[in-house]
Amino acid sequence: MSTLNPAYAAIRQQAYEANMQLPALGLVLFTFGNVSAADHSLGVFAIKPSGVPYEKLSPENMVIVDFDGNAVEGDLRPSSDTKTHAVLYKHWPKIGGIVHTHSTYGTAWAQSQRDIPLFGTTHADYNTVDIPCAPPMDDAMIEGNYEYETGFQIMNCFNDRGLDYKEVEMVLVGNHAPFTWGKTADKAVHNSAVLECVAKMALLTEQINPQAPRLKEALKRKHWERKHGPDSYYGQS
Amino acid sequence: MSTLNPAYAAIRQQAYEANMQLPALGLVLFTFGNVSAADHSLGVFAIKPSGVPYEKLSPENMVIVDFDGNAVEGDLRPSSDTKTHAVLYKHWPKIGGIVHTHSTYGTAWAQSQRDIPLFGTTHADYNTVDIPCAPPMDDAMIEGNYEYETGFQIMNCFNDRGLDYKEVEMVLVGNHAPFTWGKTADKAVHNSAVLECVAKMALLTEQINPQAPRLKEALKRKHWERKHGPDSYYGQS
Amino acid sequence: MSTLNPAYAAIRQQAYEANMQLPALGLVLFTFGNVSAADHSLGVFAIKPSGVPYEKLSPENMVIVDFDGNAVEGDLRPSSDTKTHAVLYKHWPKIGGIVHTHSTYGTAWAQSQRDIPLFGTTHADYNTVDIPCAPPMDDAMIEGNYEYETGFQIMNCFNDRGLDYKEVEMVLVGNHAPFTWGKTADKAVHNSAVLECVAKMALLTEQINPQAPRLKEALKRKHWERKHGPDSYYGQS
Amino acid sequence: MSTLNPAYAAIRQQAYEANMQLPALGLVLFTFGNVSAADHSLGVFAIKPSGVPYEKLSPENMVIVDFDGNAVEGDLRPSSDTKTHAVLYKHWPKIGGIVHTHSTYGTAWAQSQRDIPLFGTTHADYNTVDIPCAPPMDDAMIEGNYEYETGFQIMNCFNDRGLDYKEVEMVLVGNHAPFTWGKTADKAVHNSAVLECVAKMALLTEQINPQAPRLKEALKRKHWERKHGPDSYYGQS
Repeated sequence: MSTLNPAYAAIRQQAYEANMQLPALGLVLFTFGNVSAADHSLGVFAIKPSGVPYEKLSPENMVIVDFDGNAVEGDLRPSSDTKTHAVLYKHWPKIGGIVHTHSTYGTAWAQSQRDIPLFGTTHADYNTVDIPCAPPMDDAMIEGNYEYETGFQIMNCFNDRGLDYKEVEMVLVGNHAPFTWGKTADKAVHNSAVLECVAKMALLTEQINPQAPRLKEALKRKHWERKHGPDSYYGQS
Repeated sequence: MSTLNPAYAAIRQQAYEANMQLPALGLVLFTFGNVSAADHSLGVFAIKPSGVPYEKLSPENMVIVDFDGNAVEGDLRPSSDTKTHAVLYKHWPKIGGIVHTHSTYGTAWAQSQRDIPLFGTTHADYNTVDIPCAPPMDDAMIEGNYEYETGFQIMNCFNDRGLDYKEVEMVLVGNHAPFTWGKTADKAVHNSAVLECVAKMALLTEQINPQAPRLKEALKRKHWERKHGPDSYYGQS
Repeated sequence: MSTLNPAYAAIRQQAYEANMQLPALGLVLFTFGNVSAADHSLGVFAIKPSGVPYEKLSPENMVIVDFDGNAVEGDLRPSSDTKTHAVLYKHWPKIGGIVHTHSTYGTAWAQSQRDIPLFGTTHADYNTVDIPCAPPMDDAMIEGNYEYETGFQIMNCFNDRGLDYKEVEMVLVGNHAPFTWGKTADKAVHNSAVLECVAKMALLTEQINPQAPRLKEALKRKHWERKHGPDSYYGQS
Repeated sequence: MSTLNPAYAAIRQQAYEANMQLPALGLVLFTFGNVSAADHSLGVFAIKPSGVPYEKLSPENMVIVDFDGNAVEGDLRPSSDTKTHAVLYKHWPKIGGIVHTHSTYGTAWAQSQRDIPLFGTTHADYNTVDIPCAPPMDDAMIEGNYEYETGFQIMNCFNDRGLDYKEVEMVLVGNHAPFTWGKTADKAVHNSAVLECVAKMALLTEQINPQAPRLKEALKRKHWERKHGPDSYYGQS
C-alpha cells in the first residue's frame, strides 16, 4: 500500500470507529451496512470498502472518495452505495457522517412503504414528524445511475415534504432500507440505532392498539425543545 | 471536583450500581433511562447526570438533589427527569428508589395508551391490578413545568384509581414510557425488568388469544399473598 | 452448615448444574424458575432454594425434600413450587428431573389458555400431540394447598386426555406457566428450551398463516419414530 | 480411532468450521442443524455426526459419506439428514456445501407452507424470486426412504417452478424447515443466515402493511446484477 495522505487520517479513524459500532449495536448482518465520515473543507469522505467483513476493517483500508464519487485514495473498491453518500455530502453541507444499514425493523417499514408514525416521546426526542419513507424510484432512475439517483430520491422526498435535513436526520428508502446522517459519523450511527428502536416500538404500538393516536402537538414540541431548542436542558452543555 | 459530603456516599453508591444494571438488563439504549436512590432522613436523592453514557458513570458523578429538585452537590447537570423523581420522593415517603426507562415493550404499551392487562401469575406475583397507564398530560401542564407535572400526573392516576403506591410499584405515562419505584433503587430496577417482561408476555398473549381472560380472582390473591402477604413463603425470610 | 449426607451428593450436583442452565439458555429472569433432580431409590429430590439468585447457587445449598414435600436436609427454604415437584415424583416413578420456568413464549401460551398446536417436525421430534394446557384450577384448589394441587391439576390433565407422561414431557398450567420433566434434570431443562422454541415458532406460524394446518399424521409418526422408536437412528448409540 | 485419510482433511476442516458457525449465528438450538462440505472430485462429503453437541465437534469427528449416502470413514453415525445431503450433491454438481437448520423464522414460514415473499432489496441481493416452500411429501415418500425422498422433494420443487439451483440457493421444506446450499460450506451457512434475516423481515413487513407489494421488476434486476451479474460491482473482485 502506498503512503497515506495524513490529511485524511482523521476521517479514516472516524469512519473506521463508526463502522465498527454497527455490529456492536446489532444493526448489521455480515456486511449489510456502511458508514462514511466527511471532511467538507477537503471535499472528501472516508467510507467502508465494499463487502469487507467488519473484523478486517482498519482506518487504513477505508477508501477516500470525493463528492462526485471518484476514488481519491485507497487500494480497495469503496462501498457499492458510495454514490448515494457522495450526492448527499455534495448537497447537504452540514452533515459530517452518513450511515446505511438493513436493520431489521427499519427495513421492514421500508419494505412496507410506510412512514414510521410518531407515537411517543422516544421518537420526539429526535424529530417531530413521522420518519419519511421515500417512494421506490422510477424504473429509469433504477436502470440508470442507481446509487447516484438514490441520493436524489432522498433529497426529493425531503424537498417535497418541506423537511430540513438538519432537523430530520433519517429516512427510509421504499423497498430498500434506512439511511441516517448527522454532524459526525458517530452521531449518524447513533441515529441509525434510534431509528431501529423507534421502528420496533411503532410496530408494537400498532399491534397493541391499532387505533393508537399520534403524539399530541404539545408533547412533540416539548420533547424536541428540551433536547434541541435554544433553552435545551438535556445532557451536559 | 470539590470534596464530597460523606453523608451521601451510600446513596451515590446505590444509585451508581442501580444505574449500571439498566444496560446489563437490556432496558436502555444509549442514555435512555435513569435511576435515583433517596435518603429520606436527609431529604435528598442521588441521580444519574443527564446524557452521560453508562460506561462513564461513577458513584462520584451522581448528582445530589433535594426533594424540591434543587441541586445540592455535584458538578454535572442532573437527569432531565429529575423533577419527576423529586415530586414522587416528596409525596411518597416509603420509596427509596425510582427508575425511568424507555424499555421497548413497556414503552409500546405507553404509546398505545392502554393499561397492561393482568393475564397471569408472573404479573400477579408483583401486583393484583392491570399496570396503569396514566393519560397524557393537559397542554398547560406540558407547556409549564413539564417534568414536575409528570410526577403529579402519576400521583393523580394513582389517586383516581384508588391505588396504593406501596402495592403497585410501576406505571406507564401515556405516550411516554414506564416509571417504577421500590423500597430501594435496586428493587426499583428489579421492577423495571419485571414490567418489561410482563409487557411483552401480555402482547404475545393477546396475539395468541385475542379473547384471553384476565387472571381469576383466586389466583390473583394467592400469588400476591404467597409473596407479599403476612404468611408469605417465597424467598428466605 | 451441618455435615451433608453424601448419599445426596449426586442429586445436589445434578440439580445445581441443571438450575445453572436456565439463565444460560435465556429461560429465566431473576429467580423465575427452578429445577429439581430426584433419587427414587432414596425417595428424595434436590431442589433450588426459594428466591436465591442463580449466581449464589451451589450444590451445597440445594434443599433435599422427600416426595411428601417435607424438607430432609438443608438450611434454606426450598422453592415455593416444591410441593408440585413432590406430587409429580410421587406419582410418576420414571421421571428424574422437573423444571418450572416463566419463559416468555411458553408463558404467553399458558396465559392464553391454549394448547400449543403441532405445526412442524421440530415439535414432532419431541411429541406427537399439541402441548397440553391444563385449565386454571378451581378456586377451592387454589385457596387450599395450592402448589400441591398444581401437581394434581397436571396429572388430571394427562389422565383426562389419555396422555403418557413418559411420551409427553411438557405441559402448560393455564394462566401460569410451563412445567417440563424428563429422565434426568438435564433432560428436563432440555425440554424447557424446546418448549420455548416450539411455542415461539407456533405463534409465528399462526401470524404468517392463520389457516396453517396441523402436521400430517405420517410426518408426526416418522419424526417421532426416527428419534424415539425401536429403530431410531438419531444420535449415537 | 483409526488413521484418517488425508485426502479428506480439507472437507473435514471446512465442515467443522461451517458447523461451528451455526450456534455463533444464532441459527440452532442444541443440535438442531447440520452442515456438510463436499469434494466432487472424490465423490464424498464430510458431515456433522448425529446428535453430537457443537462444543464436542472437531474436524476429526466429522463423518465422510459418499453421494449414495454410504459411510466411508468415521466412527460416529452421520447426521440423520445425511441422505438428503447425498441426493443433492449427486444431482447438483456445482454445490460444495449444504446446511439444514430449524432457525426460528425460516421454520415458521415452512410450517405455514408459504413461500417467503420478495419484499425488498435485502432479499433481491440473493435471488429474484419468492423463496420457495416445497409442499409436504406424500405419505408413501415419508413412510419409505424419508430423508432420501426429502432431497427429491426439493429437486422436484425446483424443476416444477423452473428454478436454477445455482441462482436460488435456499428452500423451505413444508412443515419442516429450511435447507440452503452454495459453492462452499461457508457460503451455504451465509445463505442460512440470510434466509433467517429475510424470513423475519418478510413477516414484519406483512404485519406493518398487509397489502405490501412485491419488489418491482427493475429493482429486482438491479440488485441481483450489481452483486451477481457480469458487471457486478459489489465486493472486491
